[in-house]
Amino acid sequence: MSELKNDRFLRALAGEPVDRTPVWMMRQAGRYLPEYKATRAQAGSFMDLCKNPELACEVTIQPLERFPLDAAILFSDILTVPDAMGLGLYFAEGEGPNFERPVRTAADIEKLFVPDPEGELQYVMNAVRTIRKELDGRVPLIGFAGSPWTLATYMVEGKSSKEYATTKGMLYSDPASLHKILDVTARSVTAYLNAQIAAGAQAVMVFDSWGGALSHEAYQEFSLRYMQQIVDGLTREHEGKKVPVILFTKGGGLWLESMAETGCDALGLDWTVDIGDARKRVGDRVALQGNMDPAVLYGTPERIRQEVATILQRYGQGSGHVFNLGHGIHQYVDPENAGVFVDAVHELSEPYHSA
Amino acid sequence: MSELKNDRFLRALAGEPVDRTPVWMMRQAGRYLPEYKATRAQAGSFMDLCKNPELACEVTIQPLERFPLDAAILFSDILTVPDAMGLGLYFAEGEGPNFERPVRTAADIEKLFVPDPEGELQYVMNAVRTIRKELDGRVPLIGFAGSPWTLATYMVEGKSSKEYATTKGMLYSDPASLHKILDVTARSVTAYLNAQIAAGAQAVMVFDSWGGALSHEAYQEFSLRYMQQIVDGLTREHEGKKVPVILFTKGGGLWLESMAETGCDALGLDWTVDIGDARKRVGDRVALQGNMDPAVLYGTPERIRQEVATILQRYGQGSGHVFNLGHGIHQYVDPENAGVFVDAVHELSEPYHSA
Repeated sequence: MSELKNDRFLRALAGEPVDRTPVWMMRQAGRYLPEYKATRAQAGSFMDLCKNPELACEVTIQPLERFPLDAAILFSDILTVPDAMGLGLYFAEGEGPNFERPVRTAADIEKLFVPDPEGELQYVMNAVRTIRKELDGRVPLIGFAGSPWTLATYMVEGKSSKEYATTKGMLYSDPASLHKILDVTARSVTAYLNAQIAAGAQAVMVFDSWGGALSHEAYQEFSLRYMQQIVDGLTREHEGKKVPVILFTKGGGLWLESMAETGCDALGLDWTVDIGDARKRVGDRVALQGNMDPAVLYGTPERIRQEVATILQRYGQGSGHVFNLGHGIHQYVDPENAGVFVDAVHELSEPYHSA
Repeated sequence: MSELKNDRFLRALAGEPVDRTPVWMMRQAGRYLPEYKATRAQAGSFMDLCKNPELACEVTIQPLERFPLDAAILFSDILTVPDAMGLGLYFAEGEGPNFERPVRTAADIEKLFVPDPEGELQYVMNAVRTIRKELDGRVPLIGFAGSPWTLATYMVEGKSSKEYATTKGMLYSDPASLHKILDVTARSVTAYLNAQIAAGAQAVMVFDSWGGALSHEAYQEFSLRYMQQIVDGLTREHEGKKVPVILFTKGGGLWLESMAETGCDALGLDWTVDIGDARKRVGDRVALQGNMDPAVLYGTPERIRQEVATILQRYGQGSGHVFNLGHGIHQYVDPENAGVFVDAVHELSEPYHSA
């Protein structure tokens, strides 16, 4: 594999000195880019795009051609794992994801299994290999997966949900069943991420999109515990390099201390948290990634630069910060504004890294 | 007006000794009750029910006939205020609320006005008067309104929203316009709540349902600032009794200190916060209301009792706690389980109030 030409992202995650704060955007390969929409149209459905390694590679690299981003992230979906468990993922037009066979009964749970990452999920590993080759050391490649709790909400509800009534119903009336689902999912995610690392992912991120819907106690027992299981099972070094792991619970701002205790390398932050307070709370145990409201990208260029400046100032001097949005970029954002954002991070962060 | 027969709720909000922790449930007059659905069917639409003082009174009192609740809350909707501003509220079948005339342009904003609480909103005041009379001192009556930020999201989007793209677009590209909307809405809410107090509401609550969607800084400037304006303008004493004000920002667990500094009497908490931590953070400046996940009511009676016990234990000894759910009761909850919840609070809280 080629040497990395830009290692700011990995250095910042390790707390090592950098010249500028590295930056990437969650969902940077997405519908706000006309070139993404063109490739997507060519691929067919969203899952057709995920399952085509060449086209997945193409959309992964598209945002890097526009913006001087410091990391690439595998184009895929968190629901590949339950889909590979046989639940039958499909996207109805204009709706979110759906599963043909949601997991509700003891019999449904018995049927769950750890998918072979180089079997049912080989298309993802092929995408990782293709992207690594195509990137040729330009920036590091981030692999990812959904957290067991977040995946379980889709597996049990069978679709997106506002209140997670069925999943939480199971949590409060039959927690043993939910634990079974979470355990097999955690083992699946661990194998899946380790295979991504073996295929070339240089960092991995666990997206706990719906952990923030849990009570502080249920979060520990039903979400964090299984992310801990994943962190404990991950390959932390590959080809002589450390492979950092980032945990992101949207709405998890109250729980940063316990997330940092898992032994992960970094925490993703949404925009409800003051990143300066977060840094004080977790000290130098972990790096921090975030945390601008994606909606700021609807603002004027001046407003975007002002928000970047504020977040940099709150974080303060030194390394350990990867700039990002606090959630995925919205589809109606003007790509020009995304460029303003990326440039502002590089330009305005320099003084925070001078010796 | 008759003397209050049960003043636990008001005593707890004032931090005065109580024999048991008082309890009520957000949305306690709601679709989980068959008797509510019957009255609603008789009324016609949801807004027909809100606008009929006799039927609004009937559904307000229904949950008190089933459960030994310590407070009643006016049956109404937070969107009565923007509706009275002429925006044309309607509920399409199976959808959330919609406005015929959302507020987008400078001209739209110019047209906004403070509705006369005894004019366009008199039906609400009539409901308050009817309920107070019908309650006859049984328990106190809580009045309420939406927070300016929360109302503004509906006024600008014209409907419910996941990302508040239009409202946040205005926030980040044209904040002066959003401030105008928030200011007239704050003045409207202040007048509206003061009229509810004059009509007989014995406590008031401000629902900031979507404040948690804001960044920590935007929350201060676009939500909390206008709740402060309301707190400053409220009638705090009526008929020789203190009228407590409760602020509730769903997803606002990181911001409790600044909320407590507004001079409100109590904070509503959602279930992501450990109520023991919250009490440490705000000290005795304010009382706390909350905070069981409504989804616990899908659990077994044993599990419900266990969760009540945990929250009581976390809060600890003494007054200053009003038990509640962390959000509205879900429509598919078995009313029996709501009864288990209410009884558990009264039964299990006694030891925390012994001298």
